[in-house]
Parts: sequence; C-alpha cells; structure tokens
Amino acid sequence: MKITVCRKSHFNAAHKLYNKKWTKKENIKIFGKCSNENFHGHNYELIVKIYGEINKSTGMVIDLGLLKKIIKKEIKDKLDHKNLNLDISYFKNVIPTTENLVIFIWEKLKKAIDLDCKITVKLYETPRNFVEYSE
Amino acid sequence: MKITVCRKSHFNAAHKLYNKKWTKKENIKIFGKCSNENFHGHNYELIVKIYGEINKSTGMVIDLGLLKKIIKKEIKDKLDHKNLNLDISYFKNVIPTTENLVIFIWEKLKKAIDLDCKITVKLYETPRNFVEYSE
Amino acid sequence: MKITVCRKSHFNAAHKLYNKKWTKKENIKIFGKCSNENFHGHNYELIVKIYGEINKSTGMVIDLGLLKKIIKKEIKDKLDHKNLNLDISYFKNVIPTTENLVIFIWEKLKKAIDLDCKITVKLYETPRNFVEYSE
Amino acid sequence: MKITVCRKSHFNAAHKLYNKKWTKKENIKIFGKCSNENFHGHNYELIVKIYGEINKSTGMVIDLGLLKKIIKKEIKDKLDHKNLNLDISYFKNVIPTTENLVIFIWEKLKKAIDLDCKITVKLYETPRNFVEYSE
Amino acid sequence: MKITVCRKSHFNAAHKLYNKKWTKKENIKIFGKCSNENFHGHNYELIVKIYGEINKSTGMVIDLGLLKKIIKKEIKDKLDHKNLNLDISYFKNVIPTTENLVIFIWEKLKKAIDLDCKITVKLYETPRNFVEYSE
Amino acid sequence: MKITVCRKSHFNAAHKLYNKKWTKKENIKIFGKCSNENFHGHNYELIVKIYGEINKSTGMVIDLGLLKKIIKKEIKDKLDHKNLNLDISYFKNVIPTTENLVIFIWEKLKKAIDLDCKITVKLYETPRNFVEYSE
Repeated sequence: MKITVCRKSHFNAAHKLYNKKWTKKENIKIFGKCSNENFHGHNYELIVKIYGEINKSTGMVIDLGLLKKIIKKEIKDKLDHKNLNLDISYFKNVIPTTENLVIFIWEKLKKAIDLDCKITVKLYETPRNFVEYSE
Repeated sequence: MKITVCRKSHFNAAHKLYNKKWTKKENIKIFGKCSNENFHGHNYELIVKIYGEINKSTGMVIDLGLLKKIIKKEIKDKLDHKNLNLDISYFKNVIPTTENLVIFIWEKLKKAIDLDCKITVKLYETPRNFVEYSE
Repeated sequence: MKITVCRKSHFNAAHKLYNKKWTKKENIKIFGKCSNENFHGHNYELIVKIYGEINKSTGMVIDLGLLKKIIKKEIKDKLDHKNLNLDISYFKNVIPTTENLVIFIWEKLKKAIDLDCKITVKLYETPRNFVEYSE
Repeated sequence: MKITVCRKSHFNAAHKLYNKKWTKKENIKIFGKCSNENFHGHNYELIVKIYGEINKSTGMVIDLGLLKKIIKKEIKDKLDHKNLNLDISYFKNVIPTTENLVIFIWEKLKKAIDLDCKITVKLYETPRNFVEYSE
Repeated sequence: MKITVCRKSHFNAAHKLYNKKWTKKENIKIFGKCSNENFHGHNYELIVKIYGEINKSTGMVIDLGLLKKIIKKEIKDKLDHKNLNLDISYFKNVIPTTENLVIFIWEKLKKAIDLDCKITVKLYETPRNFVEYSE
Repeated sequence: MKITVCRKSHFNAAHKLYNKKWTKKENIKIFGKCSNENFHGHNYELIVKIYGEINKSTGMVIDLGLLKKIIKKEIKDKLDHKNLNLDISYFKNVIPTTENLVIFIWEKLKKAIDLDCKITVKLYETPRNFVEYSE
C-alpha cells in the first residue's frame, strides 16, 4: 500500500538573480528588482514529499525524525542564513531562481534518502511565489 | 527539465447560486443559504500553476512578474469587487459555483499565456472550500 | 486571576460602501471599487476575546462551547450568507465598513454575554484589512 | 468536464505509536517520544478531495453541504476528542500513525460517498507533518 | 526605548478536562466531549512576548536564540509529547484548561528569564481557541 | 468612537547583524549565524495599526487605499528587494535587527500619516520571530 508522507521545514537566505553574461541593463529588464546587485532575501518554506510503501511493522513510510535529520544535514546546514550566490559553490554559475534552487535541493535529498520511493520537493520563495519539482 | 511554478493572487466578489429554471423552493433545497436572492460574497484566493520547461538563460519557466500582470489584466481587473451574477456576462446563464468559476479563469489564462505549458488553477472560495482544475 | 480567552469564527457576506447622501461620483472618489452598486463580498474572520476571572471549579473564564453558541445565534445566524446593506436593517442608514460592522457585532455580543468581563472583537474583512474594537 | 472539489475539516485526538510485539526499549528506538505510554495528541486538519464530473444543472461535482455532513458523521463523530488507541477498535492492532489513520479515513469515506469519483484524503498531524492517500 | 519582541513555538500533548470532585455526569455537563476519560489532544502553538528596553550595543531586547533555548528547556522538554494530566505533577489537582496551562507556562518563563521586562504568553489550543496571559 | 484599523503588507530584504566595533568572533558570539558576512534575508510581513476616531460620513478611521499608498511609498519602495545594511543609509551605523527596523518604519509612517491617531507597527522577520512597537 503506497502513500505520500510530507515534512515541512524552512531556511532563510539572501540571493540575487543576475546572469553574468548580460549587461546590468539586460539583467534589470529580465529580473527587475530581483537583480539588485547588493542582494535581497527570503524566508524559504520547504516541503519534502516521499511517496512509498508503508512498512507493516512501523506503520510508516519513513521515520519522520530521520527525514527531519536528513533535511537538516543536507539542506538547512548548507543553505540557512547563507548568501546563495556567494556561499554556495553550485550557484557560482547557476542563477539561484526558485526553479534552480528546488532542483539543487531535490538532488541533495535524492542522494541522501536511502529508500525505494518517489521524492517531490515544493519550495515557497514567498507565500505568493512557489515551485514544485518531482522525478 | 520540466517543473511547476505557482503564483498566488486574490480577489473579492459577490455571488449567489441560483438556477433560474427552478423555483425558489427548489433552489433553497439544492443550494441552501447560498441561494439568498440578495447575494453573499467571498475573498477568493487564486493559485495559478504553470508546468513547463526551465529556460536556461533565465533559470525560469515564466517571468512571475509577467504572470502577475496577466493575472491582474485577465482575472483581477474583471472579477475583483464585482458581482459575478450581475457584472460578468459569462455568468448570466452559468451558475457561478466555484467549479464553474475556476473553469472561467482557466479559459481566460489559457488564451492569455503564450507558452508551451500545462496550466492548473486552484481556487479557494473560503479557506475550507476549494477546487482545482487542470487540462 | 484574570486572563483573556479567545474564540475564532467566520461568516460570508456581500456589501457595498455607499453614502446615499452623496452622488455616485463622490462615492467612487471616497470608496473606489468598494462602491460598486451591484455589491462585492468577503469571507469575514471573527475573533471574540473575553477578559475575565478564571472560575476555580472549572478552570475556565467562560465555557467556549457556550461562547460558540452565542456567536452562532447572535452573529452567524444573522450575518452569514447575507447582504449587509439589504438584509440587515441596522445597515439601512449605516455604511457597512469593517469599522461599523465590528461595532455592530460588539454590541450584539455585549448584550448576550452575561458575565463580568471586558469584550474585544477583531474582524478580518480580508487577510490584509482588519479592525479591532474594545470597550 | 472533470474537476477536483475539496473540503477542509478538523478533529482533535490523543494517540501513541506503540507496537505491542516489541519491548518498550524497541518502541522508543523506533517511535521516540511518540511512544510515550500515557499518550500525547494532535489537532488533525483533514482535506477531502473529490474528483468527478460537474453536474450541469447544479454546476457542482458534489453538494459541499452533503460532503460536510458525511465527514461529520463518518469521521468527526467517530474520532473527535477521542483516544485513537483506546476508543477506536480499528486501532486495537493497527498502529495509529498518520499513514494508517489516513487509510482508515479514506475507507470510511469511500463507503459513504455514493458518487462515481476519485477520492483523495490529505491529513495534517501537525502543520509540519502530513500525508496524502489516493486510490 | 521599549518594544515587544515575540517568539513562536509549539508542542503536542494529550489531556482531559475533568474535576475529580464531580461525578462523571457533572463533568460531561460542564466539559462536554473534553471530559472523555481516555483523553484527547492538541498541537499547542505558543507565543512568548517580551516587552523591554532595546540594548544599544546589540539592537535587541533579548537574544532570540537564548529565548528559544529557554522555551525549549522550560516548556517543550517538559510538555511536548506528554499527557498533561498524568505526566505533569502540577496538573494532578489543577484542571489542564488552556487558561491554567498558560499560567503554568508564564510562571516557568518568569522564573527563567533573567531580564527587567514584562512577559506575556499567548497559547493556541486549536487555531480557533486560544488564551493570553500577562502580568 | 475610537477603533483600531489594520493593514497588512510585505517586503523582502537582505541583511546581516554585525556590530562594526566588535571583532568577527564577538559578532558570532552575540549574533550567531545572523552575522554571516555575506548576508542572509527574509520575507518581512508588516502590519500597520491605526487607532483613531471613526469619521461619521465615511464610516472609516482612514481610507485603507490611502494607507496602502503611504505604506508603498514610505516603506515598500524604500526597503523591498534591498540590502538593509548597504542600501539604506539609516542602517550604516544602526544594526538592522527587527527591533531597530520596526522603529525605522514607525518613524517614517508617523511623519507621513497626517491624522490624529496612535500608530502601532508589527513586523514579522519570520513566522516565528516578530516585534511590535507603539508610541
């Protein structure tokens, strides 16, 4: 019997949307105020969804305490209170849009979660703008 | 690489649920207090979801600033602070249930969003009653 | 020992902001799109706060089940799924702004709650616009 | 034309996660503080989603007033203010994890909703931990 | 310059409202389904408010990291995943209503927070029922 | 008749908590990860409360449309998508804690709102950390 279990988490980070191959003017045209060279920031809200088989002994798909620890180690410890453009090497040449950030998070979790399951990641940049990525 | 990006918006409107082909008594039986002839109203919360390819140069599926403008022009400017039954010609002969309203919104957005993508619309009539429509 | 206990409730209604002594043009100038003659509407969220003494036998200021019933009888049954301008006689000559509506609610509750206490009413017209009234 | 309509509800309950076949030490290892023998509890938030055809006369998939009544009779009256382990016979030998609880709820609703539709149930144990089950 | 800083936290617990001096029938009359002998439970949401002077060197009234630690030690470690009636000696002869629980929390924090300030505690038993206590 | 009307708004910004008179080590000791030299950021949620007399002709304390415009001009246009430390001259020598930021906002609004009223400002740095300042 398969089911989806979800865990909500959060982290805060600074970023800017800026394509180094373009002029400042072109960046403002595409990214607007999100291209402010001194950065701005967000409280990111993160939902990790695991679709898998219920273990009959535990009645659980995955121990949510374990999932919480994995999210802490792989995502919060890396991204929380950081500058995505300056502190995270992955975003040296990748623009830290919510789209690219959710794929970064999905890849980290896919490697770290040792379970036969389908992982979906939902990421709120603000309560009004959010993305969802699934394999 | 395909992903879903979402934008939340809102508008306020009055409406009543009333089938003109039925008697008042029949309308009360089917629609209860929602059939009150003098109307009632809601703060509608709207989520528009766009599933499409990430553009490599911008790192975005769609410019959320552009999507915000489309939602304003196609939905908010038409529906906000309006009476759905009296002010919107589409609902002259269509009952403005949340089901029918979400299809109205989906059709307007489908025409206006010029992108190879799948559009899903979620509409909260209240925090407790909501619908979702997808192609 | 005095403390504040709170109960959240909700109702939906249609209204318009319109001063009959003014021209349509003047109403639009003051109330903007809220003056739309065909009405618009809201999901009102209501919080009733009771500040009073804790009863030693029950450990409660007021039975919240009783408070729920009073709110239902005095407020929800009167206002839910109604048109404030047309269905509520109080608003025949009083403009149903959130300010005036919260005073209407406060007065109904003050009469109905038979307890030595201070009553405060908070009313959300939308998640972004709200008022609070206290004696 | 098919669409999803959703209704949100809630109930409060006590429970503990405990596998009677294991020692207390094993239960603490697997379930942590959730295995506290004296129970703990939650405000469960429940979302029921019905995917089906819109009825042309009513403009609705299902009367949400009827759905509200079914949820009250089948779920709230059975689970609200109860101890899942002690008061609900189904959980005598089934551990009341959110996964197992959502399946219990889905089965009750499937039997009670007399409509050609697909039912999905989402259950929040806390705002941070939740599950979703669908046929 | 004085200001209020607030920190939100949460814990889950089981309880029942039951006055041992009364018969079961009397308890049901006063406390309704909250008196269920096998307990029920809640996700309590807790807001601690500190009104005090801003320290000029730090720009803070109190280090919120320190406040978080105090709340963890004094409240979460004591109440989270517990049965208030059975596991907390304070509630052996005090009915664990939200009113009495908020006073218990306030007293613990008042002793533990070593600062010239006014402490207010707000406690949500559910999103619809909550209390606030202040010195 | 006096009443409080409230308007909710929001902006996103980057900042760091860093006292230039201290060493990096001392800053980490006091501000922890908030002192990250490359900045982090937040979605600030802002509530402005106006306590004043209800105008009898309009039924309003203040036109919320006007208040929205003032908040846009005085706060959003200045702070949204900015780096508080680098882009706002006020914070050149003032640490942009939520406490200091709420006072900055209060002072801007006090000058801009031409009304005999009491202004209170509530500012959420995150859903879990927030402050309130009043004259």
